[in-house]
This record gives sequence, structure tokens and C-alpha cells, in this order.
Amino acid sequence: MDALPLSLTVLDYAAVAVFGATGALAAARRGYDIVTFGFFAAVTGVGGGTLRDLLIGAPVFWVDRPQYILVCLAGALAIWIFGWGRGRERLLLWLDAVGMAAYTVVGALKAVSLGVNPLAAIVMGVLTSTFGGIIRDVLAHEPSVLLRRELTVSPALAGAALFVGLDAIGAPVLVAGPAGFLAALVMRGGAIQFGWQAPAFRRTPPA
Amino acid sequence: MDALPLSLTVLDYAAVAVFGATGALAAARRGYDIVTFGFFAAVTGVGGGTLRDLLIGAPVFWVDRPQYILVCLAGALAIWIFGWGRGRERLLLWLDAVGMAAYTVVGALKAVSLGVNPLAAIVMGVLTSTFGGIIRDVLAHEPSVLLRRELTVSPALAGAALFVGLDAIGAPVLVAGPAGFLAALVMRGGAIQFGWQAPAFRRTPPA
Amino acid sequence: MDALPLSLTVLDYAAVAVFGATGALAAARRGYDIVTFGFFAAVTGVGGGTLRDLLIGAPVFWVDRPQYILVCLAGALAIWIFGWGRGRERLLLWLDAVGMAAYTVVGALKAVSLGVNPLAAIVMGVLTSTFGGIIRDVLAHEPSVLLRRELTVSPALAGAALFVGLDAIGAPVLVAGPAGFLAALVMRGGAIQFGWQAPAFRRTPPA
Repeated sequence: MDALPLSLTVLDYAAVAVFGATGALAAARRGYDIVTFGFFAAVTGVGGGTLRDLLIGAPVFWVDRPQYILVCLAGALAIWIFGWGRGRERLLLWLDAVGMAAYTVVGALKAVSLGVNPLAAIVMGVLTSTFGGIIRDVLAHEPSVLLRRELTVSPALAGAALFVGLDAIGAPVLVAGPAGFLAALVMRGGAIQFGWQAPAFRRTPPA
Repeated sequence: MDALPLSLTVLDYAAVAVFGATGALAAARRGYDIVTFGFFAAVTGVGGGTLRDLLIGAPVFWVDRPQYILVCLAGALAIWIFGWGRGRERLLLWLDAVGMAAYTVVGALKAVSLGVNPLAAIVMGVLTSTFGGIIRDVLAHEPSVLLRRELTVSPALAGAALFVGLDAIGAPVLVAGPAGFLAALVMRGGAIQFGWQAPAFRRTPPA
Repeated sequence: MDALPLSLTVLDYAAVAVFGATGALAAARRGYDIVTFGFFAAVTGVGGGTLRDLLIGAPVFWVDRPQYILVCLAGALAIWIFGWGRGRERLLLWLDAVGMAAYTVVGALKAVSLGVNPLAAIVMGVLTSTFGGIIRDVLAHEPSVLLRRELTVSPALAGAALFVGLDAIGAPVLVAGPAGFLAALVMRGGAIQFGWQAPAFRRTPPA
């Protein structure tokens, strides 16, 4: 992670803060107290990257860098202080999309840079950007983001696959990174703005 | 794992494919899209073994062997293509029983071969064969397989205990493995076919 | 952990047994069978410490010390044998508070003694004492303890912060440990006895 370009490092912290805010939002919707706020912010902000690090056998990134936890708490504090309204929910949805796209690339990049094979690196990109939100929903006892009809996992999958594919054929990180980031962001943005969905299962296959 | 008899290796992949299919089925029942299908297939297929590997400190088995993820996705694809019907659900229940019995032995065997003590090895056998389904149910926001009245964890426990016990007294893997496998399969089969249950908790103990 | 004072070791096992009993209780409330009883007892008893060990990269404590699993099962067996009643539920709530306070200190102490930085050590204390119960609730498909209005995470946070803070300024474990333990216990006890709550989120901040 130390060799990440500065832009990715900035995106990394921004993504943690935004995910932290969405975790706090999940707590806010139900009127939980300030400690539960912080708990949800931290779990959502660092959950995906934690799972990635456990799976690839790397030291868990935030244990030695407590600033990540503080960034999550800052995101939660912002929600606590500035309250919450309908317009802000839409803003956060878009910030969340940016965070997801950034996390997808950062997650896959860390896996690739530790020598993980391409398929597993794609999985790590997807898990890094989606699992924090999944854990948040499970802990809040709500249907997970996985179960929504609009595209949520697919954009991460597309972004991670594009990044890892470009990296595998020798593209520099400064090309592959933004490409994966934009692919994930555009797909997720389309889902937010136009309700894009992937084909759903049908009991009987098309003729 | 490299020293596994071929028959166990075949069972291992077959179990992953079957668990992958049951994960896809959970997604199918609710009409999720194809990416969520694949996600559930992968989580269900490799979830139990992932937890085992994390607990015993071994490298997570599928990270370096992406074919496991592909096998999960193949199981999901089969469900997607061939659709789903009542008769097939019962078939899958039986395939799932076979997969569970295989995973129980494979999971306990890996723990034993890494020097884990017998009691923890039994726990690993149980976790390997049950936790994928538990994670699947938690992510699908459904009551977990744990909470069903028919035997689900007990067969894994019996099979793992028999395998580890025989192994501990010096029985060769080719005897202990099939014995554990059959014990788990027969108990689970009885639960499927005859609704076998274990004694439930009563508020007042029997006189 | 080997350098723990004897009193903490005793508290450690007692906490595991009590958490095991609360896990069994969750199963008892729904009439689950005896194996599910044991499963919930084990998950609740060792779940928090397991997560802590995975996060800090330590060997998972119960894998090499199967007595912890046996202690969980003993807690479950006690619930099974002695049945369950209203008065006992309140007793268990208090025992659970003692277990939580003990786990908070033991969890933070293990992190500190492995060189984890203070902020992460506080997080480890909180996770050790709360995550077993969270996993129990998630597996039982019930709203997690996190979501209750009375103080549950806050006492662990306060106890862990006090312990780690005292430790950081050089206080001996025999001072910092009991101080953290008592802080957590008093706050949690107040929540049990008087319904203490932390401030909840309001949509509009106070003027």
C-alpha cells in the first residue's frame, strides 16, 4: 500500500470516511446512540478491507494504522452534527459510489501487489468494496445491499476485472487504476440515476 | 491437502460445486440477478473452508487455487441454465447431504494433518461443512440452517467425531474417511427422509 | 496470555462459561436441539476472542486450548439441566455483565501485550467482549445486542479505554485491570438496573 500513488491514497481515506458515514447513517435511521453510531461507522468503513487482508494473509491494515478508525469516526461525527435529510441521502449515495469505485481498485491493487493470482485479486476487489456494507446491513438486521435489485456488486466486479485485466497485460497502475475506477463508478452511477439492473433469474429459461 | 486420496479430492470439488448450487438456489428463490447468484454460490461454496483455514492459521485454500471459485460458479451456472423445480430441490437436498458429509471429513482431515488437536479438529470438520450454508442464510436475511428442527449440525458433528476418533487411534485415512463420511451421510439422510430430530430443550427437565 | 495474573485467568474462563450460557439461552428461547445449544454456546463464548486474534494476527486462542470449548459446553449444559426461569434470566444478565467486563480487560490486555497500539487495543477490548454476543444474535436471526437502547457497547468502550489509558501511562496491570473491569461493570450494571442510555441521534441537532 505504501507504493500507492498519492491520488489513490487520498481516495482510500475518502472512501473510508464515506463508508463510515453510510454506517453511521444506518444507525441514524433507527435512532441508535452515539457509541453504536461509531461502531457501525468503523465496521462499515474498514470491514471490507479487513476481510481482504485476512483472506490474503496480510496484516489487517487498520490495526497498525489507527488513523483509519479515526477517519471512520470523523465520517460518523459529520452525520451526527449535520443531521440528516432527504437531499443529503442522495449526496451520500453518490459519495458511496465514489468510495465503492475507489475501494474496488485499492482492494484489487493490494492483492495484485502481494502476488495474488488475477481471479482471486478480482474477488478481493469486490469484497473490499462491498463487504463493509454487507456487514453493516447484517448487524443492523436489515436485508443486505446484496439483495437490492439495482446494480451493487456488478459495478465492483466490472471495475475489479477491468483493473486486474489491464494490470495483467502490463498496463501501468496509473492507467489501469482510473480505468477500473471509472468503470465501477459509471455502472453504479447508472444504477443510482436510472435504476440499471442485471438480468434476474427466471424459473424457466428463455426459449 | 495434496496428500488427499483422489477420491477425497473428487469429493472436495463435488462438494464445492453442490454448495455453490445451493447458494445459487438461495438467490434463485428470491429472483436475484446473475451476479448475486455468483456471489452467493462462491460464499456458500468456500465459506466454511475459509473459516477453517483462518482459524487454524493456514493459507485460505481458494486464494491460491482459483479453480475452486470457478467450480462454485459452474454450480451456479447449472442452476441458472436448467432452471429449478420441485423435484430438483429434493435432488439438491441429497447432493447437499453428500457435499456436507464430504466437507466434514475433508475439513477435519486438513486440521488433523496440520497438527490441530482432536477436539479442535472436530470443530473444524463441523465448521467446514456447515458455515458456508450459515453465511449464505445470514446474507440472504433468512433464518439459518442452524435453526431448523431437523438434524443439520449433528450429522457433521457425528461424522467429524468418528473420523477424528478413528484417526486418533491409528486407523488409516482410507478407513476413517469413509467411516466419517458415511456416518454423517446416514444421519443427514435420515433427517431428510424421515425428519429425524435431536432432543429439543424443555423448560422443565424430565422428572 | 500466560503471564495473566491468576485472577484474570479465572475471570477469563468464567467469562467464557457465562457467555456460553447466554448463547445456550438464545437457543433455549426458541426450543432448539441440544447440538444447536452447544453450537451457540461455543460461538458466543469464543467468538469475540476469535475475531480479536484474527485481527491482531495471533493464533486463535481456543484452537490450541480445547478446554475453552469444553467450558462453553459446560455453560450450555448447565442451562440444559437446570432449565430456565425468569429469575435466572436476571441472574444471567448480571453474570453476563461480569463476563463482559472481564473480557474487555482480557481482550485489551492481550492486544497491548502483543504490541498493538492503544487505539487498536481499545477496539480489541470492545470486540472481544461484544462480538460473541453479536454473532450469537446474527445466527439466531434476532436484532443484535448492538441495537438495544440500553448501554451495551459503551461500557466495554469505557472499560477498555480506561485500562489501555492507565497501561499507557505506566500503571501496573493489577491496577489498570481492575479499574477497567470496574468501569465497564458499573456502567453495564447501571444499564441493567436503571436502564441507562447514551444520547441517541436526533434528526435535527439541538439548538
